[in-house]
Amino acid sequence: MNKHTYAVIMAGGGGTRLWPVSRKNRPKQLLPLLGEETLFQSTVNRLTDLLPPERILVVTVAEQASEMQVQSPSIPLENYLIEPAPRGTAAVVGLAAAILNKRDPEAMMAILPSDHFIRNRDLFHYLLRTAFSIASQKYLVTLGITPLHPSTAYGYIQQGELLDGDFKYPVYKVRRFKEKPDEKTAQEFLRSGDHSWNSGMFVWRADAILNEINRQMPALAGVLDKISALWNTSSHAEVIQSLWHDLEIETIDYGIMEQAERVAVLPAGGLGWSDVGAWDSLFEVLFPDMNGNVAVNSQHLALETRNVLVYGNNPDRLIVTIGLDDMVVVDVDDVLLVCKVDQAQKVRDVVEHLKKHRQENYL
Amino acid sequence: MNKHTYAVIMAGGGGTRLWPVSRKNRPKQLLPLLGEETLFQSTVNRLTDLLPPERILVVTVAEQASEMQVQSPSIPLENYLIEPAPRGTAAVVGLAAAILNKRDPEAMMAILPSDHFIRNRDLFHYLLRTAFSIASQKYLVTLGITPLHPSTAYGYIQQGELLDGDFKYPVYKVRRFKEKPDEKTAQEFLRSGDHSWNSGMFVWRADAILNEINRQMPALAGVLDKISALWNTSSHAEVIQSLWHDLEIETIDYGIMEQAERVAVLPAGGLGWSDVGAWDSLFEVLFPDMNGNVAVNSQHLALETRNVLVYGNNPDRLIVTIGLDDMVVVDVDDVLLVCKVDQAQKVRDVVEHLKKHRQENYL
Repeated sequence: MNKHTYAVIMAGGGGTRLWPVSRKNRPKQLLPLLGEETLFQSTVNRLTDLLPPERILVVTVAEQASEMQVQSPSIPLENYLIEPAPRGTAAVVGLAAAILNKRDPEAMMAILPSDHFIRNRDLFHYLLRTAFSIASQKYLVTLGITPLHPSTAYGYIQQGELLDGDFKYPVYKVRRFKEKPDEKTAQEFLRSGDHSWNSGMFVWRADAILNEINRQMPALAGVLDKISALWNTSSHAEVIQSLWHDLEIETIDYGIMEQAERVAVLPAGGLGWSDVGAWDSLFEVLFPDMNGNVAVNSQHLALETRNVLVYGNNPDRLIVTIGLDDMVVVDVDDVLLVCKVDQAQKVRDVVEHLKKHRQENYL
Repeated sequence: MNKHTYAVIMAGGGGTRLWPVSRKNRPKQLLPLLGEETLFQSTVNRLTDLLPPERILVVTVAEQASEMQVQSPSIPLENYLIEPAPRGTAAVVGLAAAILNKRDPEAMMAILPSDHFIRNRDLFHYLLRTAFSIASQKYLVTLGITPLHPSTAYGYIQQGELLDGDFKYPVYKVRRFKEKPDEKTAQEFLRSGDHSWNSGMFVWRADAILNEINRQMPALAGVLDKISALWNTSSHAEVIQSLWHDLEIETIDYGIMEQAERVAVLPAGGLGWSDVGAWDSLFEVLFPDMNGNVAVNSQHLALETRNVLVYGNNPDRLIVTIGLDDMVVVDVDDVLLVCKVDQAQKVRDVVEHLKKHRQENYL
């Protein structure tokens, strides 16, 4: 890949819907949820075939940075951009773009969440190369995921006309970004054939996204100007700290993408992608047996059981299920969760409940 | 109670359907399944208001006797009758009757399983007194339980005409003993109004039941004659051992009661009885919250959850259920069981599976 291409890994989130495996001090991206590697390590490793570690940046919070450096020591320390506090993805993207643009005015960047799963690394590389070649024409490129079912857990992107150009995959202008739909609307989106899941992965020139931030979020743009001017000076930590706290929390999708110009979507099928946002989406990317069951880190003895994920942390523990359908069983040292798959989003309510009742030890 | 009344506690079983709490080396009667006392201790304690410990006998196997003596030290050692191996309840009853008859030719005995639960002890005492007064007229008395629902897990007793006599409760001649019915038949039994659950609790004169054994099971009668002649002599253990192993395995219900004469049933309602045979029947005698949920030895956080029993062994462990109905969750150190209530009988299949696959450590 040409020397102006960079990747920016966003790694600030908590992953509360994967509680009780994902915990306050062990957020999901730092856990080996789907194999030997942690999600963060997988995100780094699927990039290192494409880019040298010097061109991979990580935006995260201080509490997580040291563990990340242990997990993926190849990324240089100066490539970690520390947010004083989470202010949404618009601020994250803006910070990375401003720093990169200062380092390399021709910089193109892929924005990648640290906590997604992608089975097909080769296809991911092909798609990313294509996205960079579109981005070099000053498009803001979003990676869309061809929907597999009418999910209500993802935002959607509606595509418009096919983009002209000599690309390896069909690429479309974006017609509209759409929020997480209700079930009926999700069915319509699926049937329409022109909607993709919004993966939260973007590729663009740093200057192109900064232009949009200037135009649509001038307050953020002003803060970014000040921060990048002081970056790597003695006063930079202090200044960021004070400026950052004044920023409004905003996502890149709503803050920028919805009203941006020259936005393209590259729909991907067969990527084996999941945002691993909750137990149901994690379940989707595992390989079930003939009854639809999956056992991770546990012995599962299943009688009259269909479509059940048993997720443990002790291979010697025997988990027996009798007469269960469409269920997730998550078994860790201090907590057991048994949850109907279609109610997996409610795990967030459990975490809220525990916070409210100050049961900190379970968080 | 008059000095010829005795109680015989039968304590040989394993309770495999209450796995994984009930285990090979910790059978259910030796466990505090429903409170502070073990089921065996409860069985003894609900008798000691009525009878001195000297008139309480225990028939059990050698492996369990020493633990029972620790749990209920008031019962004299010589009151433990040790079976070399389980040969069914007919042999147990016969042995106890033969020994008692030798000790006291006027002996009347209540036969009581060691592993049942009875909430209402006072009522139990009243019923037992009545049963003894019927038994004094040479009736073989069975305690029936007024059915609460169309259970397919219990045998039934159909009552005939009302017995004449000055008893405190209505007592009936037995028309027929019936095996565990299918669902449709159980519905009919419930609607009929003249069927009781067979509790496995009996009261009779020792000589009356010995007469029936002589008549219907002459081989057993012959063995019992030899054993009782040698009881408490130096050769008794050896002789029992060899004779016992030749006995056919038979229950008192099928071997004797079905064809016996002068059989009466005393139907009991409101006893709060359960044979605690499996997780569903244990669930029945616990007090649920307004959603039908019960938590034992665990913290249960229930979202969209109805009629779920959570049975743990660690009060600090948090068990969260989301979207569950009619389920039993049993959580112990090395095993987790999640089972639909109406499939609770299949726990036995799990134990069989583990035996077959030699997973001894889970038994």
